[in-house]
This record gives sequence, structure tokens and C-alpha cells, in this order.
Amino acid sequence: MVDLLPWLVSVGSPLTSACIGGGDQGFFLLAEASEAELEPLVLASVLLSLITVYLAAKIGGELCARLNLPPVLGELVGGVVVGISALHLIVFPEAGGEMGSALLRVVDATAGLDPQSLMTVFRGESEVISVLAELGVIILLFEIGLESDLKELIRVGPQAAVVAVVGVVVPFALGTVGLIALFNIATVPAIFAGAALTATSIGITAKVLAELQRLNSKEGQIIIGAAVLDDVLGIIVLAVVASLAKTGEIEILNVVYLIAGAAIFLVGSIFLGRLLSPFFVTLVDQMKTRGQVIISSLVFAFFLSYVAAAIQLETILGAFAAGLILAETSKRKELEEQISPIADMLVPIFFVTVGARTDLGVLNPLDPNNREGLIIASFLVLVAIAGKVVTGFAVFGQPGINRLAIGFGMVPRGEVGLVFAGVGSASGALSESLEAAIIVMVISTTFLAPPLLRVVFKEPDDTGSDTDEKEIPAVEAGEVS
Amino acid sequence: MVDLLPWLVSVGSPLTSACIGGGDQGFFLLAEASEAELEPLVLASVLLSLITVYLAAKIGGELCARLNLPPVLGELVGGVVVGISALHLIVFPEAGGEMGSALLRVVDATAGLDPQSLMTVFRGESEVISVLAELGVIILLFEIGLESDLKELIRVGPQAAVVAVVGVVVPFALGTVGLIALFNIATVPAIFAGAALTATSIGITAKVLAELQRLNSKEGQIIIGAAVLDDVLGIIVLAVVASLAKTGEIEILNVVYLIAGAAIFLVGSIFLGRLLSPFFVTLVDQMKTRGQVIISSLVFAFFLSYVAAAIQLETILGAFAAGLILAETSKRKELEEQISPIADMLVPIFFVTVGARTDLGVLNPLDPNNREGLIIASFLVLVAIAGKVVTGFAVFGQPGINRLAIGFGMVPRGEVGLVFAGVGSASGALSESLEAAIIVMVISTTFLAPPLLRVVFKEPDDTGSDTDEKEIPAVEAGEVS
Repeated sequence: MVDLLPWLVSVGSPLTSACIGGGDQGFFLLAEASEAELEPLVLASVLLSLITVYLAAKIGGELCARLNLPPVLGELVGGVVVGISALHLIVFPEAGGEMGSALLRVVDATAGLDPQSLMTVFRGESEVISVLAELGVIILLFEIGLESDLKELIRVGPQAAVVAVVGVVVPFALGTVGLIALFNIATVPAIFAGAALTATSIGITAKVLAELQRLNSKEGQIIIGAAVLDDVLGIIVLAVVASLAKTGEIEILNVVYLIAGAAIFLVGSIFLGRLLSPFFVTLVDQMKTRGQVIISSLVFAFFLSYVAAAIQLETILGAFAAGLILAETSKRKELEEQISPIADMLVPIFFVTVGARTDLGVLNPLDPNNREGLIIASFLVLVAIAGKVVTGFAVFGQPGINRLAIGFGMVPRGEVGLVFAGVGSASGALSESLEAAIIVMVISTTFLAPPLLRVVFKEPDDTGSDTDEKEIPAVEAGEVS
Repeated sequence: MVDLLPWLVSVGSPLTSACIGGGDQGFFLLAEASEAELEPLVLASVLLSLITVYLAAKIGGELCARLNLPPVLGELVGGVVVGISALHLIVFPEAGGEMGSALLRVVDATAGLDPQSLMTVFRGESEVISVLAELGVIILLFEIGLESDLKELIRVGPQAAVVAVVGVVVPFALGTVGLIALFNIATVPAIFAGAALTATSIGITAKVLAELQRLNSKEGQIIIGAAVLDDVLGIIVLAVVASLAKTGEIEILNVVYLIAGAAIFLVGSIFLGRLLSPFFVTLVDQMKTRGQVIISSLVFAFFLSYVAAAIQLETILGAFAAGLILAETSKRKELEEQISPIADMLVPIFFVTVGARTDLGVLNPLDPNNREGLIIASFLVLVAIAGKVVTGFAVFGQPGINRLAIGFGMVPRGEVGLVFAGVGSASGALSESLEAAIIVMVISTTFLAPPLLRVVFKEPDDTGSDTDEKEIPAVEAGEVS
């Protein structure tokens, strides 16, 4: 093969290339323990981290399910408990985890490493967990796309579209302008926070409506349609905002390129995908080996994710498009069944690590330095509720409709809001306090929406939620948007 | 206890992440591009690598399925094609991949990185793929355990036990002694190669027997029973041998500790597990959130894997024990269904990377330096066949039984032999040529066994294999041992 980096060849031994750039700079890292010796410890650390992540996700999720709250909230709170804010079991090098995690001490107890090797293991483990979390959000968006229905989206029509657009524009404008004008926040982080306000969690809303047996009411239909559209709009907004965050500058041309790029990518890939999907089905049908549906679909989803990343958009936009396309094929049901355990395995890693990275300490009210962060969080919660409640009053030609119910139905941000916070955090655009404020906003709106909806629908009785929980499909059980 | 799990595949990555992670050791590496900028590129590289791995696995697997060969062989050969031997798409820093992979240039084409940052991305990607491959083999052994039947193992009784023990002892002794005496190979690598000769692939044998409709013949029953026992014996042998490779010395006390430790761990965890599994089932039944069966089982499997690693055994021994234990609970069927897509996703990464790491160039017959490796490979193939064929003649009290059929049924090494090669390669115990010779042995025995079986069963006609392929469960379709 062609030498990619000819300057490295002179380095010679594979061992010296151990540290990037190899050679003369990297040798000191090998002084204490060789990389071959450390590698098994990385796997052991990854196993311990995954056990911790799953325990946090399941304990939190089960508690929330018993409190009639969406399980994803429990995964988030579980992540906060095991993360940088409290137990320090899951921490990351870049976010205050310079001392390594508490789990690392467990690994060290059986290995007896020097501090430098220990740090090397820690960084290897963090890298793997981070990428697993990102694969988790890719699988999540793929699954959301798979469970969306393009035709139904078109059918629910203008009412839902108006609600969706108002529910994106109003919170975004109020939030961004408010943060800049009232709190002197820089433009890019303000836009990011504003974008996080646009999300709507279809999972949480659908679950509550199902409990109240209002899914098929006129209000319910509009809410669900608008929430699905919000998923699409939200992902475009996220793709645009995340790209802005990379450059750190707002250029009109760039914004136009990103919006146009995201729209063209989504529409184009769906159009091409629908043309090509019969070939996909034929190909899969001709395959004889195990896993033909799931592997072919993952290749497709990873390919679109990579293309989206390569043209400076977000990987999750590609994954979502892949889901939408495959949802229209005859393989949909089989694929939904097979992607489900994979999502069960990878998605909690995303939510728990979002929680684990969030330092709620920056919102501790006892520290006067945190006052501004707390005020920002309160402002975001207010805008988040007001910005969505107005959507109910945008509905036209429907006298007597329960406008407050529609508004409250759009309030919960759920996992989509967390995706914004996670992407924002990874991009480095958000300050610690602003990120924590967004997390507080997401948690508050998600906790508040179910009781508010129950009040406006005037249904004090809430029996039968347990059976609903088992009957309704995964997407409505609050685990995916 | 520095080297906990020497068999772990990837190398170099801890250092990579050290560099990526920044901090006091890595700062000089961040001169060109910050870690936040590089992180998305690591994800993009991982996505491209996974696409390549899946395409190689599926193209190879489908070709083999059409040639009536086990798909896992195709995954291995696909890995060889995309790996260090040919296309250089999947390469690893420690195994001749100092120049990065060809995929990296694709990533670089849209990113325009400096060489140093590019290398950082390469090492991050390699770390992630290596750990995913390790998780793949953990899931594979968990699935094999889950599909084994403890009670049936006990029932098939003495005939199968004799065949299994002879089939482990004879090839191991012949192989190890032969390598030392004839080729002057050092003791530890010779033992490793001998251990690789002990494996039997139940998946390949079962598939061929099913095609010939001989699964329920006396010969078929003995073969299957012995192959299942061989799985257990083989994993204990592997655990012992891999631990020996860590220290590089053969101490009688150490060997006794390892054999006793592996046996006690396996028996003890199964005994405790059977006691505790009713509580596991009760716990899972009380859970209300999505993924309760799969996540609880993964936590259990990862926990036993970690414990096995912490007491100096192999992670896969723990995963196998976890599978055996959960196979006896009422959740077995549900768990088998849910683990299947996860195995489909992760296991091919293991087989493809085993192939990708194998440099078949060291067996190029045109190079005189390779002559010894080729002779060793031929020797291993001969011992591999002879050592298993004798097992048929160890069967007692069964006049008129087809002894050759039993012997040939035990010949294919399949994926179990590859696990040995992968673990041996990661431990650094095997020379390049010895590793390649083992791979050649595994490939040869696996390709040879199906036609040999057909000859001794005197069934020239081989219709109906297509339908069998779809009907028989995954374990018999040659994808898992």
C-alpha cells in the first residue's frame, strides 16, 4: 500500500509508534507499562463502566416508571448520580475527570498500576464509552426514523404543521434573543440553547395521551402530528446549529448553506432511498446468512450517517433519514424487532453519559457564583413552557378545541432536548452553567407536562397506566422520541 | 498483576487515547488540532470501518453459504481481504499498520488534517474497533453458553466424553510435542498452537449433519455431544494457555492454579448461578421498562466476564458461564431472540478483525524465507485431521458404528480455532508465521470436513441444503460454535 505518512516509516518498530507522531516524543509513555499489558485493562474498565451505566439506567428508569414518569428521565438522573456531580464512577478526561474515575481504582486494585499507566487506561476506556454513546444516539435516531410514518406526516396536514412551526420558531426566538439581551450570552451558545428549546418529545406526550385515552381525540391527533414534524424540524435545526458551533461564527452564507444542505440532504436521501429501496429488499431477500436484515440496514444507516458528517452536517441526520427510508420497505417490522435489542444495549449509554457529564454542582444555590446559572435555568424553563403553550392558540378553524391541552402536550422536551445538550456539550459551544441550565429545563418540562396534561384534560383518575405501559409500543413508552 | 487479560486484541489505543485525551501527557500532541475537533473524526472513522467490516463479512459469508461452506469462514477470508494482507482498509497500529489505513485517507479527504492529528484519529478508531471486537467475542461465547444444554451434556454420557477427551488430548500432545521436537518452536507458542488444535466447531458439524439428515443417528448424537463438551474443555484449555502466555513461563504450580481456577470458577459460578437464577427471573419479571431481559443479562454476563478477568482467567470463560446459567432459566428463549441481533452486529467485527490482522504474506510460497512457516502449516493440518480422526476409534461397546464418520465430524475447528488464534496473537505469544499457520490449519480443516463427512456417510446427493439453512437455528447455521 501507499505510505500514508512516510515520515513515520523511519520510526521503525511498531512499539515506538505507540504514541502518535511516534518516535522521539512517545517513548516516555512506554516507560512504566507496555501498551500490550495495558490493553486488557482497558477492556476490564469498559466492562465495569458498562455494568455501571446499565445499573444506573435501569434503577433510574424503573423508579421513574413506578412514579409514572418516562424511564428516559430516570436514565438521565441515574447518569447524574454516577457521574461528575456525585459518585464519580463515570467521568471523562475533558470534563473535570482529571483524576480518573472511582471505577479505575477498582481495576487498579487487581492490577497495581503506576499513575501514568492508570491514566492511559482511563483515557482508552473514556474514548470507547464516548464512541459507544455516539453509536447509541445514531441507533436512537435510526429507530425514531423507522417508527415515523412519512405518509402519515403528510396526511395530518396543515393544523399539525402550524403547531409544529410555531412550536419551533417561538421558543427559539424567545430563548435566543432573551439570552443575548438579558444575560449577555454570546451568540453561538445562545442559539444552541434556543435550539434546545424547540424540541418536542413525542414519546412522553404519546404515553400520557395513551394513559388518558385521548390519543384519538382531535387534540391528540394534532399533538402527535406536530410532535413528529418537530422531530424533523428539530433535527434540521440541530444540524445547522451544531455546524455553526464548529466554526464559532454566524455567517449568513453559512447558515443558508447549512439549512439548504440539511434540507437537500434529507429530501434527497429520502427521494433516492425510496427509489433504491426495492433493490435493497431484493438484495436482503437473496441473502442466506444470519443477520442479513440488520447488518444490511446498519450498513445503510452508517453510510448515510457518514455522508452527513462528511458534508459537515450531523451523523444523526443521516441515521434518521435511513430510518425514514427503511420504514417504507417491507422489512420494517422485522427490522424494528431486530434493532430493538441493539437500541436497548446502546441508547442507555448515551443518556447516562449525558447525565454523567453534567455537573449539577454549577447550579448549587448555596454558592453565590451560581446565581446567574440558576436565573438562566429559570428563564429557560419559563420560555420552554410559554413558547410551546402558545402553539395551541395558533390552531385555526377549530372552534371549541382544547387549545391549552395542545400547548401542554407540546411542552416535554425529553430525550430530544438531551440530544441537543449532549451535542452542544461535545462541540464545546456551551459553558458548564448553560449546559446545566438546559438539562434543568429538559428535566423540568418533562416532569411538568404529564400532570399539566392531566389537569387540562380534566381526568383526575389515572388507572390502567400499567397495562398501557406493556401494551403500547416502545416508541410510545417514552424510551425513544 | 499488571497483565490481566493479555489476549485482548487491540494495542496502541490506550496511548492513543492518552494523546487524544490531552492532559499533562498528551499536550504536545494537541498542537495541531484540539481533541474536540478530532472526536467527530474518530466517530467518522469508526463508521467507515464498521461499514467495511460488515461488507467484508457479508460478501464473504454469502459467497461461502453459496458454496455450501460455513459463513464464518467467509467472514474470516473477507477480513483477510480488507486487512493487512491485501487492501489495508482495516489495519491496526501494532500489526504493520504504522502508516494508517486506506480508509483514513477517505476521512482525511473531507477533513484535511495534519499527519499528526490523522494518526491520533487512526489510533482512536483502532482502539474502538478492537474493543468492539472483544465485546463481540464475549457476546459470541455468551450465546454459545446460552445455546448449550447442561442437562443434555450430562445425558449424552460416557461415549461423547471419551471422544471429546481423546479429541483434546491427542491433537494437543501431537501438536505441541511435534512443534517442539521437529521445528524447535519455543514451549509457550508450541503449547498455544497445540491448544488451537483441540477445538471442535459444533456449528459447522451440526450444519453438515443436518444437511445429510444424520443429526439423530447414533454417530450424530455422539459427535454433537462430544463437540459440546469440547467447547467447555477448549475454553478451559484456552484460559490456561492464555494465562501461561502472560508470564511466558511454565510453572507446574501456576498450571495447577489455572486449571483448578478455571474449573472452580466454571463449576462455582454455575452452582451459585443456578441457586440465584430464580431471583434473577423474579427481578426481571418485576421490571417495567424496555430491555429488561437483555440489559439484566448483559450486566450478569459482563460481571462474570470481569470477575474471570480479575482472577487472571479469560473474560470469555465468564461470558460462557453466564450463558450456561441463563440457559436454564425461563428467560432463555426470549434472551436468545434478543441477543441474536446484538451478536449479528458485534460478532462479525471479531472474525473480520482476526482475518484483517493475519498477514498471509508470511506464507507466500514464492519467498524462500517462508518455507518453514509453510511446512509448519502443513504439519498442523495433518495433526489436526489425524488427531481428531482417531477419536472415532476410541468409541467402545458400539460394534458396527461408523468410526470414520465420528472422526471426520470432529475435524472442523471453525470459529473456536479462530478464537485461539486471535487470543494468541493479542498475547504476543505467537510469531507471525505460527499465527498464519494456525489460521491456515483452521481454514483447511473447516473447508475439508464437509466433503469428507459426505463421503463417509455415502450420501452423494446434497439437495435440500437451502431449506435446512433457513430452518435450523442459528447455532447450527455455522455462525456460532
